Amino acid sequence: MKKVLGIDIGGTKISYAIIDEKGNFLSQIEKKSTPKNIDELKNLFQSIIKSKENDVDIISFATAGAVNISNTRVESSTPNMPEGYNKIDFTELSDKPVYVENDANCAAWAEYKIGAAKGDDNTIIITLGTGVGGGIIIEGKLLRGKSGRAGEIGSMKINSGRGRICTCHRKDCYESYASGSGLKMTAEEIARTSSLFKSSIYNSKSIRDITTYDIIAGLKQNDLYSKEVFDTWQNDIIIGLIGLTNIFDPDSIVISGGMGEFTDIKKIENDINSEIVVSPVKVKLAKTSNNAGMIGSALLAVAKY
Amino acid sequence: MKKVLGIDIGGTKISYAIIDEKGNFLSQIEKKSTPKNIDELKNLFQSIIKSKENDVDIISFATAGAVNISNTRVESSTPNMPEGYNKIDFTELSDKPVYVENDANCAAWAEYKIGAAKGDDNTIIITLGTGVGGGIIIEGKLLRGKSGRAGEIGSMKINSGRGRICTCHRKDCYESYASGSGLKMTAEEIARTSSLFKSSIYNSKSIRDITTYDIIAGLKQNDLYSKEVFDTWQNDIIIGLIGLTNIFDPDSIVISGGMGEFTDIKKIENDINSEIVVSPVKVKLAKTSNNAGMIGSALLAVAKY
Repeated sequence: MKKVLGIDIGGTKISYAIIDEKGNFLSQIEKKSTPKNIDELKNLFQSIIKSKENDVDIISFATAGAVNISNTRVESSTPNMPEGYNKIDFTELSDKPVYVENDANCAAWAEYKIGAAKGDDNTIIITLGTGVGGGIIIEGKLLRGKSGRAGEIGSMKINSGRGRICTCHRKDCYESYASGSGLKMTAEEIARTSSLFKSSIYNSKSIRDITTYDIIAGLKQNDLYSKEVFDTWQNDIIIGLIGLTNIFDPDSIVISGGMGEFTDIKKIENDINSEIVVSPVKVKLAKTSNNAGMIGSALLAVAKY
Repeated sequence: MKKVLGIDIGGTKISYAIIDEKGNFLSQIEKKSTPKNIDELKNLFQSIIKSKENDVDIISFATAGAVNISNTRVESSTPNMPEGYNKIDFTELSDKPVYVENDANCAAWAEYKIGAAKGDDNTIIITLGTGVGGGIIIEGKLLRGKSGRAGEIGSMKINSGRGRICTCHRKDCYESYASGSGLKMTAEEIARTSSLFKSSIYNSKSIRDITTYDIIAGLKQNDLYSKEVFDTWQNDIIIGLIGLTNIFDPDSIVISGGMGEFTDIKKIENDINSEIVVSPVKVKLAKTSNNAGMIGSALLAVAKY
């Protein structure tokens, strides 16, 4: 059975472990701080690989950014990584096969191989966090597109009438409604325009200071303003998922990410299925943990090598 | 070289011809009126097949409606076809292999194999007619989904703030903006709300009587109202295509259909490429003719058998 050194590159820390081809950890997960300088970063990659490469067959990386179609480089800008990151040819780091993939795609693959979408050969994994990420599996293969950048579902446009400015400076991206940041923007919008805010438990708060946590906490206290904000946010999530379901006719949609945990999975499933023109879809909560990037990159690398 | 009897089933007429595996016609195209009764329809299918089946290896059908995953039946309702149409098992019509596929998917496949998208292994074909149809090719394969219904791009939701009612009775479907019917609805909306209508060459017309032809004709006469309607319509088309490009990262988008001919392909390409987060896409006008359904079904059948 093949063994992979799975490395997850984050903006603040780099995690790594040896993983087998079923996704089991064969070593403890080790962590290092992410260097701010490109040479230090390369040195760190080399020392991590040196310490483990004799015990593995393949090296795999999960990273932020768009990865090229041959899975060897990061091609887009990655604001949280040192300058020059997109110049690294990852295959030069080891004599063993090296594989790189976008972390959202890795996490999606982990959900498909060992998580909530196991057995669903057509599935959409959507990550609701500060932003919106996605990975799409079609007939058991990851959708990568012509250049490796497919699956940017956060940049679909919905609600074009509303004209909300996304953190990417474009207008009406799905991410600007369906993410955690989107929930906060919806909270501010509704506080300014709806009378529900006046009788809310948050009515003494400055509108700009209302947080996503306030809304989730308010829901549990039956605060009607919080409920209106949450329902609007969740409905925007559903609007995007209706489109994706009609496009892909998937077996399932898996909702993951920190904000995903707050959603009402059954309501989302019912609302989608009452609006689509394709056959019904299952909606599920993600099962894999924070280590999904590491596991997914290892399993994708095994599938390739 | 394999020969296919390609049959295109329309609501008013049924066209058929013998086609080789390169998409060439080996016989004249023959046409019959579509019977209004299911038994007459089946009899017609049988007599068409009987007259040609000794000369071919495979029988292929292009049809409206959602076709099941094994390409043997139509599973959705098809308002223009006789009642009971979805009970026909097409494989019972001949002892030779029989293949059925949705007509939009067939037309997309024809564009990919012998049309504007030839060589583009990742491509989206969008048909702008009375409605909006689509077919999606990923790594040289037709996207079919779990049940054969994938590619329903006309049912994505955009512009959810506007609340337009689609002909399918749902709200804010892409089709209700980007189709010919969408152009007419946009014309009515703008006539009611914009001062441009007062100085338009159509200002004496009843708003409900403004046609898509009026708008296209008005454009050529530099009518500012017509230009505003057209630009709004084309911008809505672009909004949907930006989302699809970010999702699929395709080599190309092919625009087909009666309304497609009126679009400004270069502007659409520029506008998409200035908004997407994936790598640039080419936008092209479709090349295959009205016979794309027949040809595409034949070529798909050859690929399967």
